[in-house]
Amino acid sequence: MAKPSLPQGMRDFSAETVQKRNYILNIIKNVFELYGFQPLETPAMENLETLMGKYGEEGDKLIFKVLNNGLNEPKNIDKSKAGFEKLMQGKSSSDLTERALKYDLTIPFARYVAMNHGQLTLPFKRYQVQPVWRADRPQRGRYREFTQCDADVVGSTALINEVELALIYHHVFTRLGLKNYSLKINSRKILTALAEQCGGAEKMTGISIAIDKLDKIGSEKVKEELLQRGLNPAQVSIIENYLNIGGSNEEKLEAIKSLFPQNANAISGAADLAFILGKVKEANINIDLTLARGLNYYTGAIFEAKAPAEVNMGSIGGGGRYDDLTGLFGVPNIPGVGISFGVDRIYDVLE
Amino acid sequence: MAKPSLPQGMRDFSAETVQKRNYILNIIKNVFELYGFQPLETPAMENLETLMGKYGEEGDKLIFKVLNNGLNEPKNIDKSKAGFEKLMQGKSSSDLTERALKYDLTIPFARYVAMNHGQLTLPFKRYQVQPVWRADRPQRGRYREFTQCDADVVGSTALINEVELALIYHHVFTRLGLKNYSLKINSRKILTALAEQCGGAEKMTGISIAIDKLDKIGSEKVKEELLQRGLNPAQVSIIENYLNIGGSNEEKLEAIKSLFPQNANAISGAADLAFILGKVKEANINIDLTLARGLNYYTGAIFEAKAPAEVNMGSIGGGGRYDDLTGLFGVPNIPGVGISFGVDRIYDVLE
Repeated sequence: MAKPSLPQGMRDFSAETVQKRNYILNIIKNVFELYGFQPLETPAMENLETLMGKYGEEGDKLIFKVLNNGLNEPKNIDKSKAGFEKLMQGKSSSDLTERALKYDLTIPFARYVAMNHGQLTLPFKRYQVQPVWRADRPQRGRYREFTQCDADVVGSTALINEVELALIYHHVFTRLGLKNYSLKINSRKILTALAEQCGGAEKMTGISIAIDKLDKIGSEKVKEELLQRGLNPAQVSIIENYLNIGGSNEEKLEAIKSLFPQNANAISGAADLAFILGKVKEANINIDLTLARGLNYYTGAIFEAKAPAEVNMGSIGGGGRYDDLTGLFGVPNIPGVGISFGVDRIYDVLE
Repeated sequence: MAKPSLPQGMRDFSAETVQKRNYILNIIKNVFELYGFQPLETPAMENLETLMGKYGEEGDKLIFKVLNNGLNEPKNIDKSKAGFEKLMQGKSSSDLTERALKYDLTIPFARYVAMNHGQLTLPFKRYQVQPVWRADRPQRGRYREFTQCDADVVGSTALINEVELALIYHHVFTRLGLKNYSLKINSRKILTALAEQCGGAEKMTGISIAIDKLDKIGSEKVKEELLQRGLNPAQVSIIENYLNIGGSNEEKLEAIKSLFPQNANAISGAADLAFILGKVKEANINIDLTLARGLNYYTGAIFEAKAPAEVNMGSIGGGGRYDDLTGLFGVPNIPGVGISFGVDRIYDVLE
């Protein structure tokens, strides 16, 4: 008899771990509720077509597909037409639709809003704390099942939502005793302005990927990468000036306005950040002009929460504003903003 | 663009439903903890071989298999040997192990106990409240994802565990306001005695299936079925006498002892029930000699909780004692007893 084992990337949680995790999760849920967010739960499975094409080529490969065991074991079934028809008896056509485990909470939320927008009162504030599954390579030391904690408000463009989400980070981390966390903020509008000054908004992704590495590889390597990505030396020089911006939050915003004096996106992005920062003075929040966040659907303010520097654990949360959550599902013009907490990282930091 | 939809048998839970469900789940969890049970969480996925062969032929067909999307799309990959080897780079052999979604909480618990029995202090009391998945036919109106709430104590043969589990039912249903619930109890030992009197213990399954239908089809049809199952008229007459046993719990136990005066299983089963009933006078508990419970691994006392008769909703919980939970996984001689609550049914009853 084979010794029993767990699939790669899967974990059991014993009583002590469940209780510590629940301590963290309950603080997050309570703060979400304090700010008027209501719980939503979506199923583990979605139709495969709901998920595919939403996470980029690499992300799509990490989606776990789900098969109906009895229906998908051709070696055990009678393959004659009559046998197949017998097998299909009582099966609806949706039994033949491919299904998959959810990869994040954002796309299932978008699917939910698109299916139910007629019944929802906007703005709609929901939180969701559920497991997601990704077939990540095991040797990276990543788990293939992990819990996401998201709060989103959709149907509102008001910046007060960004303010509330920044305050949620502050309250959660303070209650957890993570006083030296740092919360970084930037605006995709400012990154768009930078790309426009460097030849066009379509260059934003490449520029963002390169400058996002500044901390890790240093400015010389970033410049090399920008040249490899087809920017000319004059454009790289603009980016160099941008990356040299330092000082206080106020000084950074002044520098942005000076660097892109006529650019509507820069002006708007700087004004957004000035508004948010003016309302959240108690939160330990700093502008980081290299912050880009990977997901292309962000269009306004973006956030990243980092663990206290001394534990060197990196990101423990992130989020941002998007213009159009449900357009992918045929319901356009529902903008929103959301954040998430990385519970596994927070658990490790507290340990 | 296709309208977004949910896979068959899957549900979204809106805020109101989440809150009502959490009300029920928190009462169950709190009572489990009151009786010294500690939480355990196991992953959504198990290795397919952990699950297969454990639920009978019909159950096995309802197991959902899980595939790694990137690895299992032969139409998109280079099928040459070199291409396949490239695809396998960085994949451990466990990537090729088939995985499946868990079908209940008992087998994953058995797998956990078998993997960790060296570290566990016996008796080990755990509870587990998690979703499970079954590819049941949609037209039965069943959900394919639903929450199970189980409490089991393993490593003890003491009947005081049965007493505690009966009291847990009483406390949970009382706190939920389901005062007219009924809790039925029987012993597999008594059913074994009946089978032994009818020609052999191996006839127990067939006899159990037939007498379990008494409520629905009446005694004449049960007798017909027993004859069809190969019992002779003298044996059917013994079963008829057994089914005619009525009266109070004490009268039923006396009648069992009279009907099978020399049978060790009958004597032991009746003594078990007398002990349990003597300790749980406050719980609304009645002997039902037709109660059999489907799962073959039960060997002692068995339970079934029913909703108040006026709502006509049937079973809202069940469980029983088993001699050998982990023998399937190479670790013999760990007996136990467990119960579960049907949260979806309880939700519907309370609605």
